[in-house]
Amino acid sequence: MSGVLRVGVFGASGYTGLDLIELLAKHEAVRVVFATSNTYANQNVPGTDLHYIPSEQADLSSVDAVFLALPHKTSAQFARRAVDAGVKVIDLSADLRIDDPEVYAAWYGPHPHPELLPVPYGLPEIHRDRLRDAPIVAAPGCYATATLLGLYPLLQSNGLELTAPIIVDAKSGVSGAGRSPSERTHFVEVYGNLAPYNTGRAHRHIAEIEQEINRFGAYGSPLIFTPHLLPVDRGLMASLYVTPSYNMAADRVHNLYSNVYADEPLVHVLPPGENATLRHAVRTNLCVISVQPVTDQVVYITSVIDNLRKGASSQAVQCFNLMMGLPETMGLI
Amino acid sequence: MSGVLRVGVFGASGYTGLDLIELLAKHEAVRVVFATSNTYANQNVPGTDLHYIPSEQADLSSVDAVFLALPHKTSAQFARRAVDAGVKVIDLSADLRIDDPEVYAAWYGPHPHPELLPVPYGLPEIHRDRLRDAPIVAAPGCYATATLLGLYPLLQSNGLELTAPIIVDAKSGVSGAGRSPSERTHFVEVYGNLAPYNTGRAHRHIAEIEQEINRFGAYGSPLIFTPHLLPVDRGLMASLYVTPSYNMAADRVHNLYSNVYADEPLVHVLPPGENATLRHAVRTNLCVISVQPVTDQVVYITSVIDNLRKGASSQAVQCFNLMMGLPETMGLI
Amino acid sequence: MSGVLRVGVFGASGYTGLDLIELLAKHEAVRVVFATSNTYANQNVPGTDLHYIPSEQADLSSVDAVFLALPHKTSAQFARRAVDAGVKVIDLSADLRIDDPEVYAAWYGPHPHPELLPVPYGLPEIHRDRLRDAPIVAAPGCYATATLLGLYPLLQSNGLELTAPIIVDAKSGVSGAGRSPSERTHFVEVYGNLAPYNTGRAHRHIAEIEQEINRFGAYGSPLIFTPHLLPVDRGLMASLYVTPSYNMAADRVHNLYSNVYADEPLVHVLPPGENATLRHAVRTNLCVISVQPVTDQVVYITSVIDNLRKGASSQAVQCFNLMMGLPETMGLI
Amino acid sequence: MSGVLRVGVFGASGYTGLDLIELLAKHEAVRVVFATSNTYANQNVPGTDLHYIPSEQADLSSVDAVFLALPHKTSAQFARRAVDAGVKVIDLSADLRIDDPEVYAAWYGPHPHPELLPVPYGLPEIHRDRLRDAPIVAAPGCYATATLLGLYPLLQSNGLELTAPIIVDAKSGVSGAGRSPSERTHFVEVYGNLAPYNTGRAHRHIAEIEQEINRFGAYGSPLIFTPHLLPVDRGLMASLYVTPSYNMAADRVHNLYSNVYADEPLVHVLPPGENATLRHAVRTNLCVISVQPVTDQVVYITSVIDNLRKGASSQAVQCFNLMMGLPETMGLI
Repeated sequence: MSGVLRVGVFGASGYTGLDLIELLAKHEAVRVVFATSNTYANQNVPGTDLHYIPSEQADLSSVDAVFLALPHKTSAQFARRAVDAGVKVIDLSADLRIDDPEVYAAWYGPHPHPELLPVPYGLPEIHRDRLRDAPIVAAPGCYATATLLGLYPLLQSNGLELTAPIIVDAKSGVSGAGRSPSERTHFVEVYGNLAPYNTGRAHRHIAEIEQEINRFGAYGSPLIFTPHLLPVDRGLMASLYVTPSYNMAADRVHNLYSNVYADEPLVHVLPPGENATLRHAVRTNLCVISVQPVTDQVVYITSVIDNLRKGASSQAVQCFNLMMGLPETMGLI
Repeated sequence: MSGVLRVGVFGASGYTGLDLIELLAKHEAVRVVFATSNTYANQNVPGTDLHYIPSEQADLSSVDAVFLALPHKTSAQFARRAVDAGVKVIDLSADLRIDDPEVYAAWYGPHPHPELLPVPYGLPEIHRDRLRDAPIVAAPGCYATATLLGLYPLLQSNGLELTAPIIVDAKSGVSGAGRSPSERTHFVEVYGNLAPYNTGRAHRHIAEIEQEINRFGAYGSPLIFTPHLLPVDRGLMASLYVTPSYNMAADRVHNLYSNVYADEPLVHVLPPGENATLRHAVRTNLCVISVQPVTDQVVYITSVIDNLRKGASSQAVQCFNLMMGLPETMGLI
Repeated sequence: MSGVLRVGVFGASGYTGLDLIELLAKHEAVRVVFATSNTYANQNVPGTDLHYIPSEQADLSSVDAVFLALPHKTSAQFARRAVDAGVKVIDLSADLRIDDPEVYAAWYGPHPHPELLPVPYGLPEIHRDRLRDAPIVAAPGCYATATLLGLYPLLQSNGLELTAPIIVDAKSGVSGAGRSPSERTHFVEVYGNLAPYNTGRAHRHIAEIEQEINRFGAYGSPLIFTPHLLPVDRGLMASLYVTPSYNMAADRVHNLYSNVYADEPLVHVLPPGENATLRHAVRTNLCVISVQPVTDQVVYITSVIDNLRKGASSQAVQCFNLMMGLPETMGLI
Repeated sequence: MSGVLRVGVFGASGYTGLDLIELLAKHEAVRVVFATSNTYANQNVPGTDLHYIPSEQADLSSVDAVFLALPHKTSAQFARRAVDAGVKVIDLSADLRIDDPEVYAAWYGPHPHPELLPVPYGLPEIHRDRLRDAPIVAAPGCYATATLLGLYPLLQSNGLELTAPIIVDAKSGVSGAGRSPSERTHFVEVYGNLAPYNTGRAHRHIAEIEQEINRFGAYGSPLIFTPHLLPVDRGLMASLYVTPSYNMAADRVHNLYSNVYADEPLVHVLPPGENATLRHAVRTNLCVISVQPVTDQVVYITSVIDNLRKGASSQAVQCFNLMMGLPETMGLI
């Protein structure tokens, strides 16, 4: 493809959609042709000359690719239409992340378009080759991104003890809960608080995290994953407590991570002794990781991202670049 | 009246209502008989053994007094019923604050029960005598409380230049905006922000503040009042820029305030040179005031309260105590 | 003892000391006779008529008991003097928490007064009987309190798998870091951030937590404990991931906790399905606990306290009450 | 000058210095040759390959221009040396802002290098012509920038009533207080608080604001200026209450501002009815202004900036661009 690529953004008034618009506006190979929002229809799209249109009025023939930042179930509908129109799709909803429609159904209810499955899972550091030139990609969830990038070097080297549980104590800023007002996101409820939610394996991102983990081996223990709502606007930390296998000494894990991510432009491994903090990643497109052996048995890994960027919008652009044959980090560094 | 007084709280699930319940639960002369909430009907009332009932199901014959923390217009309806049932009323809505139904109508629309007007304005430091044994009282708005207590010593001594504008730059925590979720109170919108709102004499508390100011003299200038939303949960600061009259030297104003409030248990005037901060008042039942002459012409006065306490619930209890012949600060210090 | 007890507070200008002063001022059986602070000497002690005096000027003969909120090493010096003067001691520093001076030395350096050791560890829910009438008590650290109360029912019932690691992902508000200004506590550094610190078994509270755990059995795995600095002023959450032993089904753990703490006035176990949040405990004297089975293997327990209250000042008062033969929760509920 | 310009940054470890380094690193016509910090000497300069050097070791012969983000008094010393070495100077301290050394002395003490005065005041929107090719420039204070840009259209059109006081109620995030830890910037002290400080014409920025105001006319009233510390990291709002002169109707003021700033790339005037909020400016290089007539007599103007950017670093770069003959907004939009 030559010249500027035309894209459309569905669901462009949510926090992820707004961030996506901001990134795409600065992307030199892209022109945003439309942005949809049923709630804000006819209002100006911040930072652009566009006005929101209802999703139903979007003209798929006017674009080369679409980003879908829509609620699940709705997203699959528009993915179906875009595919039929020969338009590339980056879906930021959960609809295309789970290969098996029955697993999807267990977490989200019946899949509206199971015939679309499976599609490549849009975590470039793990699935880069499958993403190149792909017509349709499922961008991962924010918790899944931080968790999987925090586990990947150990997973791909068979470095985890298969029978030990992987424990993820995760914390996210409030923008991850979306822009629709609710009691849960009311300022007064969040301020000064820290609140676990969806405890006891109730969070839906568990489905995609386990799917990806199990590509690397027969992990016997279900994922132990607890999300917490942090009183900040952006940023996500996954604190991982993992048990390396007998052939992977705890004090070698840092070295493994440094090597595996040495050439990754959007993953930074901090030097030994330095801890990843939310601030390392907020308002960046990076995943920042620190590795700290605790005992012979347990390594503590901290993986932080901006939930709206590497956890959503910038990762979607990274996928888009790969799908379109552009330099992977165009518009991102 | 002897023994424990029985009270009911209407609208007991909002932030003001919850604070009121908490105060009343610790008040040794009071027993809360019912608490209403249409939204939370049948749920437990936090910190008590009660369950919320719908407002329509409240039995007025079971109580000696009611607190109305209801939306305006609705509040007047229940005030009417309570008065008819011989029950004392402390109304925390705006419905009974404005003596003149036409002025009320200009800010809030037609008054549902103009025959109830006027009632004593529940600012004990100014209207104490009218509040004793009163059957019905209008508790002031939060901004009105901080502003009027910040002006009162100058007003009552004719110490303000009548033709100079009174300027109030006010800042409030988010609980003042109520518990109903909205885009305006979404954590992500408030966090790290400071936002003026209802600028240009659009805020309704102007009506009651001007009514009270004008009891003291013919102030020629309309009130200049600008509220701002602060990224904190509680607390309200009114920053007042006032012009003393020719017979009131700026450097004598502090002394005036110290004298006027010397015996007030719930108003503290800080020593010269010390500034009132939000923290002086948050989670207290106090109004804390500092006085700082700036030039010969202008004095800067800071008046801070907890918007839910002295700005609402604790002031309502203070009124209640006066209405019932109890010690004024019972349950409050 | 009859009449009012006279107490002194050493180190009364730090956040813990200030909280202690506030609690003691409301305690009906106590009169604070002196409050020391070398930094704020001669300044008013907030909320009282006292002025700070330097620690060296405190008259031990004027009091029945002293609270030591001093830096470790210094604290033991004053404990020694108080004991010699026949004054009861509640030490909030780390100096008396570790029974074995060699273990103390490994974490804190040589002990200045090993002859004082051991003293009862001031966690009333675990050591109540040893605290009654004791002349000297070591008040536990904030992280230790939340962690140990979160583990105790399983520990005392031999309900933990001895070989599985106990994992504690802990988060604390900034007041836990003390009042002395530092880069780490600068508003700009903390705001919007979440930061692990003392990772890799470097936090000193590990010593006392392990000491207490090992009273209940031969736990083979070192404690996995990671503290994080939260962008809030107060509150502490310990998120515990534990493995019940074969004879303790995960779904029975909640019931165990409810039973063990049924009569504890200052520990609340939430109903199944409800998660403990920071707000449950902030500005209270409670430890609030929720229990959530995750898998057959792992239970997630959340234990929250106010780090300055049940994590320091109110627990010290609870110990004091026991030591003095007063009702245990006097001044606390 | 051709090719890349070499610059040095003195005082590059404070919050302003760090922001300046970040902006200069992205400026295509600039190469940062050295960055000084006595506190952080030898440590890495974040986001660069440089290491901090002590100020005394900086080689002035290696650069075309220097930015001085040093304490006042020290700054003038290095300005003197740089001028002597033929190096252009952008001074972000207060040392060169006041034309009259006696006025300087009244606020800051004796001036160390009065022979350098006066130099152009680096507010490009007001003094652009004097800044072009200037060898030395004084970058304005953050409060001065927001206040003066908020007043300028009225000042330059003689639109203000000369005898009426100009009232500025200003609010700043904590980064404005600098990076050195202090009780005032401790997280726990700031959190949930709002605190006036330097009340009563005590803030030093008053000197430069009055100097600039008085270039436009004989204003009879001293400036009424009250700063407040906001519980956010960045952002500054100046709330201005001004009295237009008889020939300037309040409802024409918005139009005046729109016209005066129509072509300014870094000042945005919001449409009538829309209020400027902190968020409009934070992390941008803009000053954002809203104009709201309140009465016939008073107009409320809100002027917001990022205190570290348009209030310091980005304005310094804007000056630098003008001094060097580069496009004014290079590296800034």
